[in-house]
Amino acid sequence: MLSSTSARRLSLLGSQVASSARLSSTAAMAPAAKYKVSVIGSGNWGSAIAKIVAENTASNPEAFDLNVRMWVFEEMIGDKKLTEIINTQHENVKYLPGIRLPSNLVAVPDLVECVTGSDILIFNVPHQFLPRICSQLKGKIPPSVRAVSCIKGVELSANGITLIASYITEQLGIYCGALSGANLAPEVAQEKFSETTIAYKVPDAADSITQKTIKTLFHRPYFHVSVVNDLAGVSLAGALKNIVALASGFVDGMGWGDNAKAAIIRRGLLEMTQFSREFFPESEASTFTEESCGVADVITSCAGGRNHKLGVAMIKTKKPVFELENELLKGQKAQGVTTAQEVNAFLTKRGKAAEYPLFTAVNDIIFNGLDSSALPEILEKVEKKVE
Amino acid sequence: MLSSTSARRLSLLGSQVASSARLSSTAAMAPAAKYKVSVIGSGNWGSAIAKIVAENTASNPEAFDLNVRMWVFEEMIGDKKLTEIINTQHENVKYLPGIRLPSNLVAVPDLVECVTGSDILIFNVPHQFLPRICSQLKGKIPPSVRAVSCIKGVELSANGITLIASYITEQLGIYCGALSGANLAPEVAQEKFSETTIAYKVPDAADSITQKTIKTLFHRPYFHVSVVNDLAGVSLAGALKNIVALASGFVDGMGWGDNAKAAIIRRGLLEMTQFSREFFPESEASTFTEESCGVADVITSCAGGRNHKLGVAMIKTKKPVFELENELLKGQKAQGVTTAQEVNAFLTKRGKAAEYPLFTAVNDIIFNGLDSSALPEILEKVEKKVE
Repeated sequence: MLSSTSARRLSLLGSQVASSARLSSTAAMAPAAKYKVSVIGSGNWGSAIAKIVAENTASNPEAFDLNVRMWVFEEMIGDKKLTEIINTQHENVKYLPGIRLPSNLVAVPDLVECVTGSDILIFNVPHQFLPRICSQLKGKIPPSVRAVSCIKGVELSANGITLIASYITEQLGIYCGALSGANLAPEVAQEKFSETTIAYKVPDAADSITQKTIKTLFHRPYFHVSVVNDLAGVSLAGALKNIVALASGFVDGMGWGDNAKAAIIRRGLLEMTQFSREFFPESEASTFTEESCGVADVITSCAGGRNHKLGVAMIKTKKPVFELENELLKGQKAQGVTTAQEVNAFLTKRGKAAEYPLFTAVNDIIFNGLDSSALPEILEKVEKKVE
Repeated sequence: MLSSTSARRLSLLGSQVASSARLSSTAAMAPAAKYKVSVIGSGNWGSAIAKIVAENTASNPEAFDLNVRMWVFEEMIGDKKLTEIINTQHENVKYLPGIRLPSNLVAVPDLVECVTGSDILIFNVPHQFLPRICSQLKGKIPPSVRAVSCIKGVELSANGITLIASYITEQLGIYCGALSGANLAPEVAQEKFSETTIAYKVPDAADSITQKTIKTLFHRPYFHVSVVNDLAGVSLAGALKNIVALASGFVDGMGWGDNAKAAIIRRGLLEMTQFSREFFPESEASTFTEESCGVADVITSCAGGRNHKLGVAMIKTKKPVFELENELLKGQKAQGVTTAQEVNAFLTKRGKAAEYPLFTAVNDIIFNGLDSSALPEILEKVEKKVE
């Protein structure tokens, strides 16, 4: 996704926080300011999050400007524009049909117009679109603006790891946090009880936009928000869990039962934590063991979802993974396949692949013909020894 | 299960380890000794564990006596004794049909005969039978004998908590560890990949029976064993997870979806850890977040099992819990119901019920008519605050 130049520019361990010196504080706006909020993206997750945020600006008029603008990639639905449908019928008939959107959520087809004058930007687009969006916004966003990325994951290559939020910071010169959790979008849109985690570390002590501001903007009675400082942990959890979901699919495909599946999830969580702590030492184990973005999201992803589904099908059909992606996912990608491969390249380059036996086995099962029935024997090798 | 006298005798925090001065070391037997092993109990879990142990005494002849004795409560199957069937057909046709047992596993109908001369005892009976078994064995077990309890749980009352293993120690004057994990017995018996956790803290530095001995006795290629020191954590995990399984059943009964279920599991794990750390400060959070007996067992129990099933049915039918236990579980108990009630009495007496909102809500839903749809609001109250 990112150019190799920008990926290289972000050093492995230094990528999390852009120089805070470059970021202006938001304090000038406090205390009387009402923050203007824009959401960039209007897929099912984008629309669900925009709905939440618009509900909260309406219920917190002392803190936020009522109207929330949502950037919509314009398309025609029959003879009407999608933005017009959203603004008159208050429903995203294409990407979130059947869900009533708040009337203070305003669809805007022009990206720059959508964000101009906003204090808080929420990024929620498929991650392959992010570079183009950032290039359109570059130089047009004041440094006092703050952002939250709902785009899951990280950019991985053999050379390094770039958090999506850090990429936004780097491109636009604004601080960006990250939201990730056990959040199947349709359930959130239907206001079924969910939890999420937002990494938001206030970049400047003088900022008037605090963790509390962010919580107020996202927390709903049906959508509980935990705000933490750990940007790397939250971002990595959202990416690495897809590898674990594939592995749990393998186990289900083999018909190994509930004990084995729980064992794989347990081991997966351990390797996720280990990876994060090893390569982003400032990250915290509790992000994985205690937060929705960690243990809860892994559980949800291993209960269903596209990576799990693909894992099951790989074992049962023995078909190549890319053929199955076409068959099962209608052209969508199962992110875990790419992540498993990229994590493996990254670990191999550092001589660390053997220390992550589950991650490595998933890659080897997908790409190198490893028999998935070898998993117990592989995991046995790294068990802690006793005397 | 335990008499109130013995429960009182074991003080809350002092109950874990009986005075080590009373326990003789096992060193006198080392290094040439071959440990004799007996399993007390032959239900499906007892038989599955006995099968594992007998496989391991056969593959480790340098460490263990070949034959493993298994105490079987004698009963007639047609015109044959169950012990005779096991010893000739090598199958427990009543409690673990279809599974071939090792020929070096010897069924013994007399309890005292079964354990006489053994160095390691494995307790694996329904916990209501334990007091009678202990009273039969009292005074007949040398203090150098070591034990492992596979009986899940703890004995709870408003007055205090007694770990099952500590009760065995108290009654018989021998050290007893505890085995607990994501272990559905039929899957283990079928040699489907599983993991477990054994708490075994060597009670005397001179002991020749070490954590390694214990691991060798239980670990199989299909049954991976992690040995830890944390007896309280392992024991409490096996009991408290049943409350969480009930709660996950409520969520499924309400049709709230995967996000909500993952949220409840996450919150449940937090309260389990909090409870263990608060009342057994020597226990470790990692027992819950990293071990099979913690996170993995909770996941398995919330995926199915009798407590989850009962929770679903309670919400869907609105019938009283005891009526449903009769209907659904054929007279078996769902342990979570009793545990929720006992934990609530224990916490209430200490003024701590509000600090465990999920545990308290489960009790209130079962016994006090609380509407389960209040769960999100209840959980919201204890969320960590941000500034």
